[in-house]
Amino acid sequence: MTFREDGALAVDWVASYLERVRELPVLAQVEPGAVRAALPRSPPDEPEPFGAVLRDLDEVLLPGLSHSQSPRWFAYFGITSSEPGVLAELLIAGLNQLGILWRTSPVLQELEELTLDWLAQLLGLPEGLHGHIEDTASTSTLVSLAAARSIRPDARTVLCSEHAHSSVDKAAKLLELDLRKVPADNEFRLRPELLELDGACAVVATIGTTSTTSVDPVPAIADRCAAAGVWLHVDAAYAGTAALCPELRHHFAGWERADSIVVNPHKWLGVPIDCSTLWTRRPDVYRDAFSLVPEYLRVGEEVASLSEYTQVLGRRFRALKLWAVLRCYGRTGLQGRIREHVRLAALFEGWVRADAEWEVVAPRPFSVVCFRLRRLDEENERLLERVNASGDIFVSHTRLRGRYVLRLAIGNFGTTEEDVRFAWEVLRREASRS
Amino acid sequence: MTFREDGALAVDWVASYLERVRELPVLAQVEPGAVRAALPRSPPDEPEPFGAVLRDLDEVLLPGLSHSQSPRWFAYFGITSSEPGVLAELLIAGLNQLGILWRTSPVLQELEELTLDWLAQLLGLPEGLHGHIEDTASTSTLVSLAAARSIRPDARTVLCSEHAHSSVDKAAKLLELDLRKVPADNEFRLRPELLELDGACAVVATIGTTSTTSVDPVPAIADRCAAAGVWLHVDAAYAGTAALCPELRHHFAGWERADSIVVNPHKWLGVPIDCSTLWTRRPDVYRDAFSLVPEYLRVGEEVASLSEYTQVLGRRFRALKLWAVLRCYGRTGLQGRIREHVRLAALFEGWVRADAEWEVVAPRPFSVVCFRLRRLDEENERLLERVNASGDIFVSHTRLRGRYVLRLAIGNFGTTEEDVRFAWEVLRREASRS
Repeated sequence: MTFREDGALAVDWVASYLERVRELPVLAQVEPGAVRAALPRSPPDEPEPFGAVLRDLDEVLLPGLSHSQSPRWFAYFGITSSEPGVLAELLIAGLNQLGILWRTSPVLQELEELTLDWLAQLLGLPEGLHGHIEDTASTSTLVSLAAARSIRPDARTVLCSEHAHSSVDKAAKLLELDLRKVPADNEFRLRPELLELDGACAVVATIGTTSTTSVDPVPAIADRCAAAGVWLHVDAAYAGTAALCPELRHHFAGWERADSIVVNPHKWLGVPIDCSTLWTRRPDVYRDAFSLVPEYLRVGEEVASLSEYTQVLGRRFRALKLWAVLRCYGRTGLQGRIREHVRLAALFEGWVRADAEWEVVAPRPFSVVCFRLRRLDEENERLLERVNASGDIFVSHTRLRGRYVLRLAIGNFGTTEEDVRFAWEVLRREASRS
Repeated sequence: MTFREDGALAVDWVASYLERVRELPVLAQVEPGAVRAALPRSPPDEPEPFGAVLRDLDEVLLPGLSHSQSPRWFAYFGITSSEPGVLAELLIAGLNQLGILWRTSPVLQELEELTLDWLAQLLGLPEGLHGHIEDTASTSTLVSLAAARSIRPDARTVLCSEHAHSSVDKAAKLLELDLRKVPADNEFRLRPELLELDGACAVVATIGTTSTTSVDPVPAIADRCAAAGVWLHVDAAYAGTAALCPELRHHFAGWERADSIVVNPHKWLGVPIDCSTLWTRRPDVYRDAFSLVPEYLRVGEEVASLSEYTQVLGRRFRALKLWAVLRCYGRTGLQGRIREHVRLAALFEGWVRADAEWEVVAPRPFSVVCFRLRRLDEENERLLERVNASGDIFVSHTRLRGRYVLRLAIGNFGTTEEDVRFAWEVLRREASRS
């Protein structure tokens, strides 16, 4: 194998893929088991060339991919693995830094600390927060609730809105904490007057919930948490990136008072999966909860390793891709993309509102529109199935006040006004067929 | 930014790096804070070209890297980000598959299931195990102990050898389980007759402990676990890959009886960090412990998503790099590398044994040699510091029966007999200077 030649083939493959991804069926149109059935049941005894991997990627795997890189992916949240992010992953793998101690990669640790400071500046977070990177928000929330539990061992309740992400449920289950879901108001925001903090160790407030991107009233929640001495964790996994734009920053009022904040640059910031950034103003609580240095890792360093602030020992050099994205887009480049997505979502929202057949069913603070046909739930559900089966676009759903609701989420860096207009045409086309 | 041109630069950078990595100081020779101090304190407002990232990698970051890719890295465990693995990471990032449901990437899920079956076949594991990929063994062990806890909620004790990895301690702490460390015998193996399984929910047996790569007596441990109805988790994170070679498979006797088994292909199998493979014969226990599907992810699929078997919702397309490595090396290629590493370790062990100044202090079942100068602990410690400060090689340490011990770990695919001979020369050179 010649790395330069195979590398050229791989770069060309990715470049061609990104050039044609808009034309591919967004949601894979295969039956369960079909991909696997098309591949050998056993590994080869003898080496194969890398070109054989690329060939199978084209000939066997491609139909079984759903394309988050498509500008016509509007499901869940729109994401982008941007070009500097993709190439940084190549560098990360080439360097294969082993992040277990500062000394095993000073650059990994110091660039992680630096980029978390950079991103905190961009988002308007206070100075002096301690930041590190986790794989996903599931882990960021888990370790934060574990930190909260560690300082109030007799308080075993976590509170969050009924619209909080399922990762809060999973974290509470693993940590054997009771989870109390607090009802939301008419705009899907946690009602702070219903927070009962006796016996609570933490509250999770969400800025940008998964279903509607609603914003919990963080200032009021922070007041209550402060009065009761309860840990406040802010989940801004999707929406946090929007704090890059001063005109959107009012949604983030009060988050600087949180004990911990999670934002996922792999959602709206152009960083490839995985990259979840976690800040805290109480790093010592994490370190007390997680630090455990066995003899074979004791080297008398004055520097605490980032692994002492979390559950897993080894970390990838994810900071390099975050650094590459922040540099290659710059503040203005990233702001431009966020603003365009919000503009496109507002445009789509306007089209829906202007059509008597449809309705918008939730406020739209960011780039996700919740809407539905003014028909039965079953018709909306079948509409979604037809739309996604067409392969033209990919849209997902939720349920609000018992009703089946469609979500159009804009977040891919390649999405244009034409793509959004196309999505609206596809939705109306399929609606007219029922 | 032009992806093809920048991609060519990035491939060339990695190729050049891998060509010269043997000549670089293996352990970074920088002071804490030096890397960070050399970089701007704030992110740029305007976009920079990707070439600026590469330039800083050369001019600012390079001295702060420790080089796990160096054939002269002998610390902790030797690892390799092999060429197919590196290029697969480029593809993974380019595709950016979102692994949250089967439908969001049928290929991600089915290739993960397939490659886990392939690897199970290569390692001689039984048919029919359920496998998935985690980031690190820390997580594989955590979710396995959580599964064990879920079916015996009143049994709150985990047992393992005093030589088990610190990730067992961290998992027990997070899960609020009591951890009982069982004494080891003269060859650093758990003494099964000391296992007290009353109130136990799990035993962790290690094949290839971190300090000495000792092998716990899994058959006897499995007997006891079976009799008591206690979950057996086998940690073969490092050594598991050696089961590829029939002549080494006797070390793995009994592991097929485990409830869960973890092997890290990012350690000895040439896969870039991160890739930890986890098999279980009791997938329903994981699913009961972890599955939690909120409305916005409910799509009536018949296929359970892999996220239902673990803590985090989103997963990267790690299967692609494992698949690329298994194909581009093949069974014989991988066996050849394992065998060569074991041969080189045996050679080094022989040199140490033949020199009256030195002693071997633990059996060497795989590719790690534990040894020391026949002098005071302090002299061995200073020797290690001088060796690593030279930048010529990187070696780590442990403590056995209270004594300071050096470890030479062979595992990088580029390591040759000349490199190992060089390591021995450096060690003797520095020893003669004290």
